[in-house]
Amino acid sequence: MKNKLKVFSLGGLGEIGKNMTVLEYGGDILIIDCGVAFPQDDMLGVDLVIPDFTYLLKNKQKIRGLVLTHAHEDHVGSTPFFLREYNVPVYGTKLTLGLMENKLREHDLLDTAKLNCVASGGSFGVGCFTVEFIRTTHSIADSVAVAVTTPVGVVIHSGDFKVDYTPIHGESIDLQRFAELGKRGVLLFMCESTNVEEKGYTLSERNVGVIFDGIFNQSPGQRIMVATFSSNIHRIQQIVFCAEKHDRKILILGRSMVNAIKKASELGYLSIPEHLLIEINELRNYPDNKVVVITTGSQGEPMSALSRMSAAEHRQMGIKPGDKIIISASPIPGNEKTVSKVINDLMRLGAEVLYEGLMEVHVSGHAKQEELKLLHALVKPKYLLPIHGEYRHLKHHRDLAVSMGMDKNDIFLMEIGDVLELSEDEAYIKGTVPSGHVYVDGLGVGDVGSVVLRDRKHLAADGLLVVTVGVSAGDGGFTAVLGPELISRGFVFMKDADNFFEEAKNIVRLTLEDCGAKKMTDFGLIRNAIRDDLKEFIWHRARRNPMILSVIMEM
Amino acid sequence: MKNKLKVFSLGGLGEIGKNMTVLEYGGDILIIDCGVAFPQDDMLGVDLVIPDFTYLLKNKQKIRGLVLTHAHEDHVGSTPFFLREYNVPVYGTKLTLGLMENKLREHDLLDTAKLNCVASGGSFGVGCFTVEFIRTTHSIADSVAVAVTTPVGVVIHSGDFKVDYTPIHGESIDLQRFAELGKRGVLLFMCESTNVEEKGYTLSERNVGVIFDGIFNQSPGQRIMVATFSSNIHRIQQIVFCAEKHDRKILILGRSMVNAIKKASELGYLSIPEHLLIEINELRNYPDNKVVVITTGSQGEPMSALSRMSAAEHRQMGIKPGDKIIISASPIPGNEKTVSKVINDLMRLGAEVLYEGLMEVHVSGHAKQEELKLLHALVKPKYLLPIHGEYRHLKHHRDLAVSMGMDKNDIFLMEIGDVLELSEDEAYIKGTVPSGHVYVDGLGVGDVGSVVLRDRKHLAADGLLVVTVGVSAGDGGFTAVLGPELISRGFVFMKDADNFFEEAKNIVRLTLEDCGAKKMTDFGLIRNAIRDDLKEFIWHRARRNPMILSVIMEM
Repeated sequence: MKNKLKVFSLGGLGEIGKNMTVLEYGGDILIIDCGVAFPQDDMLGVDLVIPDFTYLLKNKQKIRGLVLTHAHEDHVGSTPFFLREYNVPVYGTKLTLGLMENKLREHDLLDTAKLNCVASGGSFGVGCFTVEFIRTTHSIADSVAVAVTTPVGVVIHSGDFKVDYTPIHGESIDLQRFAELGKRGVLLFMCESTNVEEKGYTLSERNVGVIFDGIFNQSPGQRIMVATFSSNIHRIQQIVFCAEKHDRKILILGRSMVNAIKKASELGYLSIPEHLLIEINELRNYPDNKVVVITTGSQGEPMSALSRMSAAEHRQMGIKPGDKIIISASPIPGNEKTVSKVINDLMRLGAEVLYEGLMEVHVSGHAKQEELKLLHALVKPKYLLPIHGEYRHLKHHRDLAVSMGMDKNDIFLMEIGDVLELSEDEAYIKGTVPSGHVYVDGLGVGDVGSVVLRDRKHLAADGLLVVTVGVSAGDGGFTAVLGPELISRGFVFMKDADNFFEEAKNIVRLTLEDCGAKKMTDFGLIRNAIRDDLKEFIWHRARRNPMILSVIMEM
Repeated sequence: MKNKLKVFSLGGLGEIGKNMTVLEYGGDILIIDCGVAFPQDDMLGVDLVIPDFTYLLKNKQKIRGLVLTHAHEDHVGSTPFFLREYNVPVYGTKLTLGLMENKLREHDLLDTAKLNCVASGGSFGVGCFTVEFIRTTHSIADSVAVAVTTPVGVVIHSGDFKVDYTPIHGESIDLQRFAELGKRGVLLFMCESTNVEEKGYTLSERNVGVIFDGIFNQSPGQRIMVATFSSNIHRIQQIVFCAEKHDRKILILGRSMVNAIKKASELGYLSIPEHLLIEINELRNYPDNKVVVITTGSQGEPMSALSRMSAAEHRQMGIKPGDKIIISASPIPGNEKTVSKVINDLMRLGAEVLYEGLMEVHVSGHAKQEELKLLHALVKPKYLLPIHGEYRHLKHHRDLAVSMGMDKNDIFLMEIGDVLELSEDEAYIKGTVPSGHVYVDGLGVGDVGSVVLRDRKHLAADGLLVVTVGVSAGDGGFTAVLGPELISRGFVFMKDADNFFEEAKNIVRLTLEDCGAKKMTDFGLIRNAIRDDLKEFIWHRARRNPMILSVIMEM
């Protein structure tokens, strides 16, 4: 009897980011993507969120390879954390692996990592699987979809894509290959769902170039700055084209921008005439209308070059009245307010700021409804697994497929950890593997959990009160001999609240007397009594609920 | 020589919310609106943000009245906080004052408040000013603009408005009166800027009714729920119309919804046939297709009825597969993620959820560019002060006025506290009054300031470590006799980090030995030494930076 193919995701279902999909057949595991997510508002102090690798680390010996579809953080960002645990062969296109190098170097993994470069159109064996890279178009160059020939049939993973018939560099998405595979029969299509709620088509990247050209044309005396993602190589290429056409020198700002442009240029994905590039100390040699600045900060990231300029805190570069600044990106959900703050601050400094909503200075990298329908029509899978989206996106993706005639029962709405089992002629959800969110905070991976976060939330909302008392224990009781002392942080400003703290100390004294009278000797119980009485006093007086820590020292 | 008219805002310029505008002439002060803002992400633990009343409280004896344009929180929410300080006469329309009653009662102010009800079209004297209410249309009923005849000329404050030619109740915005005043000459127009970045016209409220009717039509067997703002009386009226037409009973959920509907019905702004209303315990008597639920929670507020239902935590009401839920509101900037969470959770429970973006189930209450141009064309003011917006909105409002031929120098881009001085024939910004953000946290008003917030941020990001040591001081030095003990919260989970804490204790011991050897006796310096050494150890080991509090008790 044949084995079943198991398919599950450790990220990217019912959430945005940390995309990671696993195929398992018999003794072979293939991983597709290994991304990070950025912390939600309630994940206080967390730097990154990575998938829970428990299942994979328990089944290390089965893992044959990790395939990366493209170099965005939500698809590759957890790779170093995984390779630290298990050094699996990694497969990706040239630019995808190239942009990974810095990250692997930072984690001291570059020398040991087993990186295998495969061009789109190429294929390779990984255990019992044959993997083929299919060229796609997306907001980063050299993106691919992945077709995996498994013992039970062909599985296609779309990666992230849009259908751009006129890409800036190289050829368009390989629709013919999708059609060819579809014609032969595709068992399972895992398709991204980011823009499934958007009607129509996403415009070609080339549209942004036309808008840029118009802006450059209408900025005769102005310095121009463009903020975009450093990984959006094609966007950057179009700025370069405009700079060349309009006779402006190019200054690149921001460490990640400098690194990405260097690497993409080396690998032939970006072409910048050497004579156009200037350094920041050369800026004064050129009038404003001879310069364009390409910078990081399109998401309002506080440490980015653009944010620092907007706050007049950039050491080498200031905003001048009349500067024209293009924010060529959409705010990622959750970043709306920080981006708006940067826009306001830039305008306060006299800059003219152009952004999405005002002008079409950005296009999405993700397929909208009509493009998704096109891929569905070409691939015509037996089963569909919508991926990369919150539940609402996955559900709407199912609705879209149903509207095209697919049977609802052949479409699987899964959460991370849910296991889909497939044979040549059936598919069903069966069981789960461990999954979840692992928090990275500083050097710690996984040591910040729900208890720590709960305490951080409490401290964030109400601050802290520390009570210290020295007691001397005697026969059948104790006496307070030192204190009580109170220290507070994030609660009320202590200097302004002398009376309040005096009253609070009295409360503690009364509690101690009461405990003494009751001949209590268990310090744990006394601590609780102090906490409860103080808590009630504070709630009554101020309707606040600081964390109360009481320390009792026995002399 | 005549006095100058002074105009300034204590909120609503360069920020969203806490709208408050002040007119001062000679010995008379008139206040227009007194709103709250909701805390920004970095205002941890803060419940509300109110204006800084310093200037007004210093000039109490001049204040002649507070005029409220409409009953939205960002226009009236700080009123109780102001009246607590100074019980000034309040003027508003019937519904505006009616919806204030509960709030004033909660603050124990209802009996003493001097409320003066004025209908739109009416006028009244306030000190040297004559105030006239001009009927407008907005997403709450009974909204007005305010025309103030001052000794130097007429000033118009738009309040919040849209141009709705087909309102649900009563007449449209009184364009003729704006035109009449404009024809006679308006010195200053203070005009709201919320939607100034949006092209075209905002659709009439009536459009939503048409969409609702279609949805009710296409939901033959489904229970329908609509979430909207409780203050959006006209939206509620349209749901009632649909309920009546499609033979459904109405259940009202959420305390604020119940209160607002009760008050608006009493005052004649909302008409619900008595026989349509049912209580929650009657729900089981009606099949799903005979019920519509009107509920709070359109912003994903965690304690709202809709949020609790989405989390299956509502005690009396659950979501059933097939329920059709309409979220008839836009997420306020910053609420996108909480709203999305509610949508996902409702869908997970099997509900069909309709929201803006998918369908036109909401229209804005604010004027877009063409409506703003219409008002400008009618009022034709000598000077313009754009209000109600972040800097970007105020700036774009200026651009809009300039595009209509206004001189840039006659338009003032101000921040809160900036004072505009006007005479009959000139206007200029001169000086400032105190302004800012006052935080309300529990019962405390203004006792949470920048130090407290800084500490909360630190605690939120990295948690806390408390070190306690008992020392015995002797000649020329001290000896540690108790501890060190460590308590941590929100840093690492203590049970998992025994080794770490043992090492940290050793660091403290070494520091104490070192301080002892140096014959240090100043506990402040010893505390600093402990903090610095621990901080360095933790940063090196974990790249984290918890708040460190050290307590030294002398035995």
